[in-house]
Amino acid sequence: MGSDQGFTTISSSPSSTTIYPVILSGGAGTRLWPASHAACPKQFMPLVSDRSMLQETIARTYDAPGFKRPLIVSSAAHGALVQQQLVAAGHGASAILLEPEGRNTAPAIAIAAAWIAARDPSAMMLVMPSDHVIADVAAFRTAIASAMPAAQAGRLVTFGIQPHYPETGYGYIAKGEPLELGVGLHAVAEFVEKPPLAQAQAYLADGRHYWNGGIFLFGAGVLLDELARHVPGVRDAAVAAMADAAVDGDFLLPEREAFCASPNVSIDVAVMEKTDRAAVIPVDMGWSDVGSWNALWAVRGQDGDGNAIKGDAVSVDGAGNLIYVDGGPPVATLGLRDSVVVSTAQGVLVMPRTRSQDVRAVVDSMKARGFLS
Amino acid sequence: MGSDQGFTTISSSPSSTTIYPVILSGGAGTRLWPASHAACPKQFMPLVSDRSMLQETIARTYDAPGFKRPLIVSSAAHGALVQQQLVAAGHGASAILLEPEGRNTAPAIAIAAAWIAARDPSAMMLVMPSDHVIADVAAFRTAIASAMPAAQAGRLVTFGIQPHYPETGYGYIAKGEPLELGVGLHAVAEFVEKPPLAQAQAYLADGRHYWNGGIFLFGAGVLLDELARHVPGVRDAAVAAMADAAVDGDFLLPEREAFCASPNVSIDVAVMEKTDRAAVIPVDMGWSDVGSWNALWAVRGQDGDGNAIKGDAVSVDGAGNLIYVDGGPPVATLGLRDSVVVSTAQGVLVMPRTRSQDVRAVVDSMKARGFLS
Repeated sequence: MGSDQGFTTISSSPSSTTIYPVILSGGAGTRLWPASHAACPKQFMPLVSDRSMLQETIARTYDAPGFKRPLIVSSAAHGALVQQQLVAAGHGASAILLEPEGRNTAPAIAIAAAWIAARDPSAMMLVMPSDHVIADVAAFRTAIASAMPAAQAGRLVTFGIQPHYPETGYGYIAKGEPLELGVGLHAVAEFVEKPPLAQAQAYLADGRHYWNGGIFLFGAGVLLDELARHVPGVRDAAVAAMADAAVDGDFLLPEREAFCASPNVSIDVAVMEKTDRAAVIPVDMGWSDVGSWNALWAVRGQDGDGNAIKGDAVSVDGAGNLIYVDGGPPVATLGLRDSVVVSTAQGVLVMPRTRSQDVRAVVDSMKARGFLS
Repeated sequence: MGSDQGFTTISSSPSSTTIYPVILSGGAGTRLWPASHAACPKQFMPLVSDRSMLQETIARTYDAPGFKRPLIVSSAAHGALVQQQLVAAGHGASAILLEPEGRNTAPAIAIAAAWIAARDPSAMMLVMPSDHVIADVAAFRTAIASAMPAAQAGRLVTFGIQPHYPETGYGYIAKGEPLELGVGLHAVAEFVEKPPLAQAQAYLADGRHYWNGGIFLFGAGVLLDELARHVPGVRDAAVAAMADAAVDGDFLLPEREAFCASPNVSIDVAVMEKTDRAAVIPVDMGWSDVGSWNALWAVRGQDGDGNAIKGDAVSVDGAGNLIYVDGGPPVATLGLRDSVVVSTAQGVLVMPRTRSQDVRAVVDSMKARGFLS
């Protein structure tokens, strides 16, 4: 596993352009506490299958025609975990970049772009969060193929997730005029922040709006050019940090001072909302960001009573529950409805599924009381 | 702590008769799983206060005028626990009798009667389960004093617990004619098995029925005589087993073969329902058998939202919950109502409080699935 080994041969891709999967693995959310926590964020956990979400993300394009080994962008705190999970899954990486600190997605993507552009500025980057579920990988790959001509023509393509309910927790993308470059491709009319419910319902009804899933396809050189145009500080910091990057075993460490000079900004705000090159490819691929216990319940297999159970747990006279045991005591539930019960060594969480968005409040309360380290 | 030490001086008792507290500590229920389990039954746990229920039971008459040190009847499996808890509380015992196996309450009380009668046949036995709560100890002591003249006159006095709701899980005692022997004393008209709800409601309304709490006062010699009359096998087994009892450190071990020849029967069925000497002393003393998690919720202190919380646990937007953490991970609850959450090293239990009577079903299911040892 090093920066010069493990490349696949490019063969039957619709075009012969190389694609680097760029997997963003720097997050450390609390929304899935007590399973996910600072020492082991969600992407490293086998939440949905027997593989971690990072391993699933890698596998989605691994050994597929046209794809290089992935670039993984993570944090210094989690480099060892990334490497363990690569080894466990038999995966190799083109490179593992460890950010000295988290500065949001624009700098993370920019250092990956700098690494790739130094080797092949015309290579494509398929940017993917490491902690999303995509149930229909074939649909995803079809969308990638549809997006390729536009990306090769210098477009920054975002994947517009077909909404199936009026989610208020995501940003939306409004599609504009169709583009001739590929099937389904449209210009982007507008990026919209998380909408209120009535707005989300209108978006769902109008057939023009898609969820912004944070998945992108663009050329490495194109992305650096657009960064230079709209947020030059991000580009300059990334290029400088990678020019002085240190090698530490299998890891590449961007130079701290240069990297930390970058603005802290998302790729959406930095580039996608400003560029005139944005395009959207709609896709319906069983996507979920698994951003809450309720979302995990929805994507996991359920029994006839709507119970999703992982680990040593029993539901008697229960329905609609997610019961998740990983490292904590076994769980017995009786007469429980539409609830979440999680048992780990860190703690036990119990709530109605409808309260899944509010986990942070209870974690804060536990910390304030000294019950969590 | 041995059979001949630690006796108190009898002084200001209303009569000069000696009373031995006889504390039955052989139970091993599953109704409070996962806190209570075979290795550590409920009576050994600090469920309600900082002391175990056994320690609380001992303290109720300890050093009170007229009372000897208690006799504790337990099982071989729990002898060490009994001794530890005596030492921890600074309590001494008249004797600790360890049954070779559990044969219900009649043999347990019979061996205690044999031990006492061998020393003083006229001594009184105050028989108490080790796992009940009595909030108003003064009321209990007053009832004991009221019952004494009847017990001294050869009556078998049962304490009739004033019911405050139509419980269907207890047996009831119907009072008969008043007895001249003491304030409030009545003959027993009838013992009634656990009634259906309508019946329990009628009992609550008629003011004649009391809960059978398994607390008794009678003479040791009288009890042996009544056993001989109604279930001679129990008396003979007890006397023989105690005649050949072995001393093992601080424990007395009734001879196994003799003891196990005893019928397996409760004191109610063996004697109380048959004797013509039964009397009842009504008492309202904040009694609970803490026979379920819901019962524990009711007897524990609650906050303004009706939450009773023990250990490292937080309730956010919750009301009416019992959250009990003892040796398990800390518990966070969110938006939970009228529920029970228990976290121990053995397991986690979650249910509505109304399902508290059905814990056995879920424990059985956990065992069948191999999730409990």
